[in-house]
Amino acid sequence: MGPGDAELLTLKAMRVLRAAPVVAYPAPLKGSGLARQIVESVLSDGLYRIEIAMRMRFNLDRTSAQTAYDRGAAAIATHLAAGRDVAVLCEGDPLFFGSFAYILARLGDRFPVEIVPGVNSIAACSAVLQQPFALLNDRVVIIPASRPAAEIEDALVKAESTAILKVGRHWDKVVRVLDRLDLRRQAWHIERASQTGQQVRSLATVEATVERSSTYFSMILVYRRGERWLR
Amino acid sequence: MGPGDAELLTLKAMRVLRAAPVVAYPAPLKGSGLARQIVESVLSDGLYRIEIAMRMRFNLDRTSAQTAYDRGAAAIATHLAAGRDVAVLCEGDPLFFGSFAYILARLGDRFPVEIVPGVNSIAACSAVLQQPFALLNDRVVIIPASRPAAEIEDALVKAESTAILKVGRHWDKVVRVLDRLDLRRQAWHIERASQTGQQVRSLATVEATVERSSTYFSMILVYRRGERWLR
Repeated sequence: MGPGDAELLTLKAMRVLRAAPVVAYPAPLKGSGLARQIVESVLSDGLYRIEIAMRMRFNLDRTSAQTAYDRGAAAIATHLAAGRDVAVLCEGDPLFFGSFAYILARLGDRFPVEIVPGVNSIAACSAVLQQPFALLNDRVVIIPASRPAAEIEDALVKAESTAILKVGRHWDKVVRVLDRLDLRRQAWHIERASQTGQQVRSLATVEATVERSSTYFSMILVYRRGERWLR
Repeated sequence: MGPGDAELLTLKAMRVLRAAPVVAYPAPLKGSGLARQIVESVLSDGLYRIEIAMRMRFNLDRTSAQTAYDRGAAAIATHLAAGRDVAVLCEGDPLFFGSFAYILARLGDRFPVEIVPGVNSIAACSAVLQQPFALLNDRVVIIPASRPAAEIEDALVKAESTAILKVGRHWDKVVRVLDRLDLRRQAWHIERASQTGQQVRSLATVEATVERSSTYFSMILVYRRGERWLR
């Protein structure tokens, strides 16, 4: 479903979604969740659809999520077995850190699956920053902020561009690594790219010593290439 | 413009493209090039548009490309200065190994630019393979095949998923690295994902000793995670 802006849906996603009598999506315990929100305007076309909200706690313990995917997959399987197509909604690209992997793992062997690739959040962040994330022979590393500082440092040293995902409570660790490598001036923190509440900050201007946290829907992009991308 | 399938255009790309009186795109010396081909059905709507084909030799010597971008940027600037919006076409995502970076470098300081993120080729390849490229805390490396074997090996050892881009004449070097790490059974070679002529091969079944080459529009995806993505 893309990174959040409903206009970043593909024509294919739109067609598949409009034709499906059943839609399934991960959701928090209350409310509809981002994937469902993105397609609100598409699904409010007056056609009746069955909705399967796979409700889970979004936290580090994966038990709640696994149970929700188990139940969701069972409900989806019932509809598929009865001949009804099910569109499974997923933020960003379904196979790039996307929740669709869990449904695919449960049903991919038993039913025909069509996967519609989508715009990922790195593309959305790059567009906001108006900086090329990669070009020519660049090496790119994408690493969740939860990984050890040494791994993040190794990535930053070797890659022309690094995306540090899901910053959340790892903010301080990441900023310390950036300071050690003197890369703060080449780093940006982006929250909710293309969504309401989008926020961009240069790491150069953020106070180093202040304990900070950041939302889950955030990333830090680091460009070692500097101005060399110009030509 | 996405990876090739015209249905993978976003609604936003479609809107911007339909409204622009001028379109510019990189192209070979003869013919229209992939970016222009992707939007053929959109641009054949009967509306008159000025087209700027930035014609270049696609080879390792970047001189021809730089000249074409210089001239293209000058032509685009003339239209912008006259108040005509110009839509610049780009395959995949414009800032992820995309040619738009060269136009942005030449005009970004002088004119307002809106960047529409797109579906990249890794997403298209993942969708074809129906394998998650990344999930949870995975580390991902994206590395052009032109980089030294030692760097490709370092990536493969450390990342859960690796995309080796633009395989072309580097086929043999890459396969040797995969053999050294015993990763052939976890590697797939995808050409022209989502395009006419799409081809997928498991590296497990390709003969190691045969000197092979591959097209520029190709990549090898390697999954070290194996079956562990299932849960």
